[in-house]
Amino acid sequence: MLTYSLEDRGGLPLYEYLYQRIREDILEGKLAAGERLPSKRALAEHLQISVITVENAYRQLEAEGFLLSRPRRGFFAAPVERLAAAPAVPAAVSRETEEPAWRLDLASGQVDVSRFPVSVWVRLTRQVLSEGGEALLTPVHRQGLPALRQAIAKDLRDRKGMAVAPEQIVVGAGAEYLYLLLAQLLAGAAFAVEDPGYPKIRQVYGKCGAACLPVPLDGQGVDLDALAASGAGVLHLSPSHHYPTGLVTPIGRRQALLRWAEGRDGVIIEDDYDSELRFTGRPIPTLQSIDDGGRVVYMNTFSQTISPSMRVGFMVLPPRLLERYRRELGFYACTVPALDQHVLARFLAGGHYDQHLSRMRKEYRLRRDRVLEAFRASSFAGRIAISEQGAGLHFLLRLDTARSDGELRRRGEALGVRLGFLSEYAARPRPDYAHTLVVNYAGLEAADLPRAMELLAEVFDE
Amino acid sequence: MLTYSLEDRGGLPLYEYLYQRIREDILEGKLAAGERLPSKRALAEHLQISVITVENAYRQLEAEGFLLSRPRRGFFAAPVERLAAAPAVPAAVSRETEEPAWRLDLASGQVDVSRFPVSVWVRLTRQVLSEGGEALLTPVHRQGLPALRQAIAKDLRDRKGMAVAPEQIVVGAGAEYLYLLLAQLLAGAAFAVEDPGYPKIRQVYGKCGAACLPVPLDGQGVDLDALAASGAGVLHLSPSHHYPTGLVTPIGRRQALLRWAEGRDGVIIEDDYDSELRFTGRPIPTLQSIDDGGRVVYMNTFSQTISPSMRVGFMVLPPRLLERYRRELGFYACTVPALDQHVLARFLAGGHYDQHLSRMRKEYRLRRDRVLEAFRASSFAGRIAISEQGAGLHFLLRLDTARSDGELRRRGEALGVRLGFLSEYAARPRPDYAHTLVVNYAGLEAADLPRAMELLAEVFDE
Repeated sequence: MLTYSLEDRGGLPLYEYLYQRIREDILEGKLAAGERLPSKRALAEHLQISVITVENAYRQLEAEGFLLSRPRRGFFAAPVERLAAAPAVPAAVSRETEEPAWRLDLASGQVDVSRFPVSVWVRLTRQVLSEGGEALLTPVHRQGLPALRQAIAKDLRDRKGMAVAPEQIVVGAGAEYLYLLLAQLLAGAAFAVEDPGYPKIRQVYGKCGAACLPVPLDGQGVDLDALAASGAGVLHLSPSHHYPTGLVTPIGRRQALLRWAEGRDGVIIEDDYDSELRFTGRPIPTLQSIDDGGRVVYMNTFSQTISPSMRVGFMVLPPRLLERYRRELGFYACTVPALDQHVLARFLAGGHYDQHLSRMRKEYRLRRDRVLEAFRASSFAGRIAISEQGAGLHFLLRLDTARSDGELRRRGEALGVRLGFLSEYAARPRPDYAHTLVVNYAGLEAADLPRAMELLAEVFDE
Repeated sequence: MLTYSLEDRGGLPLYEYLYQRIREDILEGKLAAGERLPSKRALAEHLQISVITVENAYRQLEAEGFLLSRPRRGFFAAPVERLAAAPAVPAAVSRETEEPAWRLDLASGQVDVSRFPVSVWVRLTRQVLSEGGEALLTPVHRQGLPALRQAIAKDLRDRKGMAVAPEQIVVGAGAEYLYLLLAQLLAGAAFAVEDPGYPKIRQVYGKCGAACLPVPLDGQGVDLDALAASGAGVLHLSPSHHYPTGLVTPIGRRQALLRWAEGRDGVIIEDDYDSELRFTGRPIPTLQSIDDGGRVVYMNTFSQTISPSMRVGFMVLPPRLLERYRRELGFYACTVPALDQHVLARFLAGGHYDQHLSRMRKEYRLRRDRVLEAFRASSFAGRIAISEQGAGLHFLLRLDTARSDGELRRRGEALGVRLGFLSEYAARPRPDYAHTLVVNYAGLEAADLPRAMELLAEVFDE
C-alpha cells in the first residue's frame, strides 16, 4: 500500500500533496506502468484521510494522464517516461544588450515627446473609462473602431484634402504591422523599394517572402526607367518627404508613377510617414488624392507626431484592394487595443491632434533653425554642405573629408558620438553617397548645441 | 499677365488662393508647360498684393513641382498632365456587413467581460499616467516592457510552476500577431496543425507562406504516426485543452511528442489559449515545463481571461530560438502600446489578475453547471450526449438526428439561432464529426436559459 508521511507536506493542501507524491512515484518508476493503485476507499483508510481527498488526487492524475481508470477495475499507473529534474530557467539565455549611453546621438530617429499634452490624454482616458468599461472590453471592428476611422477620414480631409471613406481604412499596430498585412495582401508581386531607403521596409517585406527590388532615385524620386526594368508589380515610396534624402517627388513624376501603375496593373504604397512635419507652406498633396485609377494604398502612423510607443497606424485601401482585403485577410482581428482606439478617436475629433501638430511644427522649426545655425557657426562650417527641404526630423550633411564613413563612425564611437550615414541606407553602394551624414536633430535641445558642435569638431578633425 | 479676382477667394488666405488658381491653370493647360510666369514683383503690383504673398504661392507650387525655378530667369510652368476632376470618395466602397442580431448565438467564442474589475484598471491607468506621461511616450524594449515580462514570468511560476526568464518572453499584439512572428522565425519548415482545430491558425500560417499539414487526433491528442508521416518540422497544438474537442493530452503522449521534436530537430508550439479556465483541480502542467531539450515555444494571451479587445499576448522562446529571434526578427518594434503594457504589468504584479481569474473560474463553473443542467432537463435531453472536461468556455454536444449539419444550421438561422459545428473545424471531413455542436456557453446568462432551450428544441425537432 502507498504510504506517505502527511506531516511533511508543508503548507500544501492534502490532495495536492498526495497528487504530487504519486506523480513522483510514477515518474521515478516506483509505481510501474500497469500497476494497480489501491482503491480510493482503501487508500483513504490507510492514510487516515477522506475519500474525497483521494478522489481529487486520483482525478487530477487521471486528467494529466498519469493514471488510467478502467470502469469497475480501478486506477492503474500509465506508461510514462522517467523524468530528469524539471528544467530550470535556462542558464544559456543571454542578457539583453543595453544601448550604450551616447554623449551625442544623431543616428536614432528620435521624437520630442516632452510637449505632448499628456493631461488631455489622461482626461480623455478617464472619460472613456468612466463610461463603464465598455470601451475597454467590447471587441472592435476588425478594420478598427468606426469612430476612430471616421476621425481619421475627417482629419485627412481637413488637413490634406483627401477624400476617403471610413470603410476604406484599416487600423493596425504600427507601420511594420501594416507592411506585414500588405505583403500578404499583395503576395506574389515583387516589391520595388526606394534605394536609398528605410531598411526596415526591405526587412519586413523580405521576411514575408516578397522579392524586394531596390530602385535608384534621380533628382525627382523613383527612376522611371529603372522601375519599369525591375519588373516589380508594387512600388513602396514616400513621395512627400523621402527618408533619408528628404526628396519631394514633384507632380509630374507623381503622375508618371500613377501611369506606370495603371499600365501594368500595379499598386503604389504611399508611405506618408512624416508629411505632417512640413515647416513652410501647405502640406504636399498626396499621391492618393490624384489617384483616379484606384492604384494607391495610402499609409501613415502617429509615431512621429504623437509617440513611437503609441503603436497606431492606418492604411487607406482603394476599392478593389479593399474587397480583396475583406475576402482574404478579413479574418484578422484589429491589433490595436480598444481603449487606445477610443481615446485616440476623441483626441482627433476634439481637435487636440491638430493643435498638437501646430505646436510641434513650430517647435521643430525653431529647433531645426537653431541646429542649422549652430552648424553654420561651427569651426567646421567651411567643410560642410547641408541639404534640407524645410520638413521632417532629419537632414543630410555632406562633409568634405578624406576619411571613409567607417573611419568617421569609429572616431565618433571613440568619443561617445553616434553618427548615421546615407551609405547605410543604400542597398547598392554609390560613391556619391560617401561622407554624407543623416542628422536626426529632434533630440537636440538648444542647451546641448555648443557641446555637440565641439564633439563633432573633434570627430571631423583631419 | 495672370489675372484673378481676389474677391472670390472666400475665407482662403491670399497666398493659398493664388496658389490654387495657378495650380488649376497649369492642370487645365491654360498655363502651358515651359511658359514663363510673371516676376513676383510684377504679379504683386498687377494684383495689388504683397511680394511675399506671391513668393509664398510660387514656393509652394515649386515644392509640389508645378513650377520650375531657373536662377536669374524666374519661374516656368512644369510639364504636368491635365487632371480630370479630383477623385471623390469612391462610390464603389461597399458598406461593412453587420452581424445579424441573433436571438441565440452558440457559435461565437464569447467572453463574459462584465465582471472585469474596471475600477482597478482605471485606478492603475491613472496611477501610471500621473507619473508624468513617461509611460505613454517612452519607447519600450522590442520584446516588451521589462516590468511586464517580469510580471508574466512570475505569474507563470506561481500559477503553473514554469521556470521562465523574462528575457525569453516576447510580448505582441495578440495570438494572431505571434503566429505571424513564428511563421517568420520558423520559415522553411512545414507546420503540422491539429485536425480538427482552430481555423485561424491554418489561415495565418498559410498567409505567411508556410505549408500547413493537418494531422488527425486520436483519443490522446495528435496522432504520432500521422505526425511522423507528415514530414512537418513544426507542430502547433493546444495540449491542455484542445479547441474545439476539449481534449487534454496525457503525460505519456506529451513525452512522446517531445521525443518526436528532439528526433527530427523540430519545434513544438504550445498554444495554451484557455488553460487558466480549468474548473476542478490544478492547472494541467505545460509541455514547456517538461521540455528539457529546448524544443517548446509556449504562447498565451489575455484575450480569454481579461478581454479579446485587450490585444496582448506573449510567447516564451527556448534559448536557441531566442538567439535566432534576436538575430533575425529583433528589428521589429513591440506592437503593444507602452501604456497598456505598464498598466497590465501592475495588474499582474498587484495580484489583481490572479484574483480576477479565481472569480472568473467560479463564475464560469457556475454558469457551465447551469447550462449543462438546462440541457439535461430539456425536452431533447434524451437525444444528446455532452462531452466536456471541466474546463474552458465551450463543450461538445452530440445530437441524435437524421438531419445534416447544413440542415440544422439553416433551421437555426431561420429561427435566429446561430450554431457552430465540429465539422467546421475539420480540415478533412470525417463522418463521426457529424451532428456535433460546439457550444460556446460563456455568453449564456441564467435568465436566458429557458428561452434558449425552447429555441433549440424547435431547431432540433424532427
